[in-house]
Amino acid sequence: MESDPCRVKTRTPRAPTYELFYWPTIQGRGEPVRLALEEAAAPYVDVARLTKKEGGGMDAMLALLKGKGIAKGQLRPFAPPILRSGRFLVAQVANILQYLGPRLGLVPADEASRLVAHQLQLTVTDLFAEVHDTHHPVSTGLYYEDQKKEAKENARNFLSERMPKFLGYFESVLVANTKSKARHLLGARLSYVDLSLFQVIEGLRYAFPRALGRFEKKIPRLVELRDRVGERPNVKAYLASDRRLAFSEDGIFRRYPELDE
Amino acid sequence: MESDPCRVKTRTPRAPTYELFYWPTIQGRGEPVRLALEEAAAPYVDVARLTKKEGGGMDAMLALLKGKGIAKGQLRPFAPPILRSGRFLVAQVANILQYLGPRLGLVPADEASRLVAHQLQLTVTDLFAEVHDTHHPVSTGLYYEDQKKEAKENARNFLSERMPKFLGYFESVLVANTKSKARHLLGARLSYVDLSLFQVIEGLRYAFPRALGRFEKKIPRLVELRDRVGERPNVKAYLASDRRLAFSEDGIFRRYPELDE
Repeated sequence: MESDPCRVKTRTPRAPTYELFYWPTIQGRGEPVRLALEEAAAPYVDVARLTKKEGGGMDAMLALLKGKGIAKGQLRPFAPPILRSGRFLVAQVANILQYLGPRLGLVPADEASRLVAHQLQLTVTDLFAEVHDTHHPVSTGLYYEDQKKEAKENARNFLSERMPKFLGYFESVLVANTKSKARHLLGARLSYVDLSLFQVIEGLRYAFPRALGRFEKKIPRLVELRDRVGERPNVKAYLASDRRLAFSEDGIFRRYPELDE
Repeated sequence: MESDPCRVKTRTPRAPTYELFYWPTIQGRGEPVRLALEEAAAPYVDVARLTKKEGGGMDAMLALLKGKGIAKGQLRPFAPPILRSGRFLVAQVANILQYLGPRLGLVPADEASRLVAHQLQLTVTDLFAEVHDTHHPVSTGLYYEDQKKEAKENARNFLSERMPKFLGYFESVLVANTKSKARHLLGARLSYVDLSLFQVIEGLRYAFPRALGRFEKKIPRLVELRDRVGERPNVKAYLASDRRLAFSEDGIFRRYPELDE
């Protein structure tokens, strides 16, 4: 086939290995995946944040959710985030991370380590869900303003019981590891779980600065881990870039001062 | 070592391969695991349901949650259910099932199939969490009676929006498979996801007989799958045994008629 001389020549970069599909304006549940891809300097595009011209946009994500472009052997996903990687189409945050983990060098390859990492990540998933419930306890179909009273009650219980239980648990895992001088949740080396815990601390600091401020002295190792992750060159560059979206009252972690005791 | 002639001789069965730790009086989140072990006729004990004399009981489970008997390389679990299998200690329902799946022949061995199965199972996990929220929307720290009004609002949204969305999704997966005459969620063969969907339908029938009764005509393939799973010899024998606990108002699926529209 002869080339069209009128066609504008553009530099076509090599097709990226990973395509992430997630809501383009929030960190939300997509952020643990973005952090893993960024830390590993993996080639990826955040599809819904591209323009149509660039081959992306919200329509591309919505088409996928409707089942368009699903190949044989692939499963139409229930909800974003979704990762496309060659013949793989993977959804559910923890599932995406266990797929990426060994490929990005963010989890040891043996089955025992991978199960432990995934178990911790699913506990992060549970924590995310409970944080979301603090501002939408009655129904995701209602506005926050219409469930403010119940949100206060939910947040009160979250901050007094659940947050200490979750963070205390992760701290205890670090304490157990520190005995062997290992300073990560999985032991000696950084894993995707550490990156997610960074996001947990950042998110809770944003949403509940007063409550977490008081509680941080009880989780010194988690705070220290958060600091160390935040200083990693790739993470630091990501956080300073416009690829990192800001926290807002549309995401999982929301700052409603009345919920922060 | 000489044997003690005074010692009572008992038949000591071979140590069971799998030890399941879960609340002994409810189906709850443990039931998808029990169904998988039963379908595969796997050797297992439901530790918290044993007596102390038999080496079990609630104390055994609580000790594990407190970190007693955790070996090197194992992770103290955050919450039950927990599965102990040789050197593995695995928690989180979906994580346990992805561990058991290939060992019990309840998922194909290739990575793509396992990721798809796990993705579906995590969607079941999300559905379980939303069912739990229908009766405890404001706080797990409060009685149902103290959040009845909010529960009604949550259940109304669940039954009109969320349940149709979840079940419609699983039905659509079956529809896509049926085109190639495959009648399971993963295609041709039964997997642990089918067993969990059996539990979903059973649970929703118990909790919301009126709402699900009306909706079942929209999910004929799921209902047919539920029937087929229920007729499998090992599942049938399990359901008829006293190992299958009854649904009750202590589990995930609860029958509060006022929530069923």
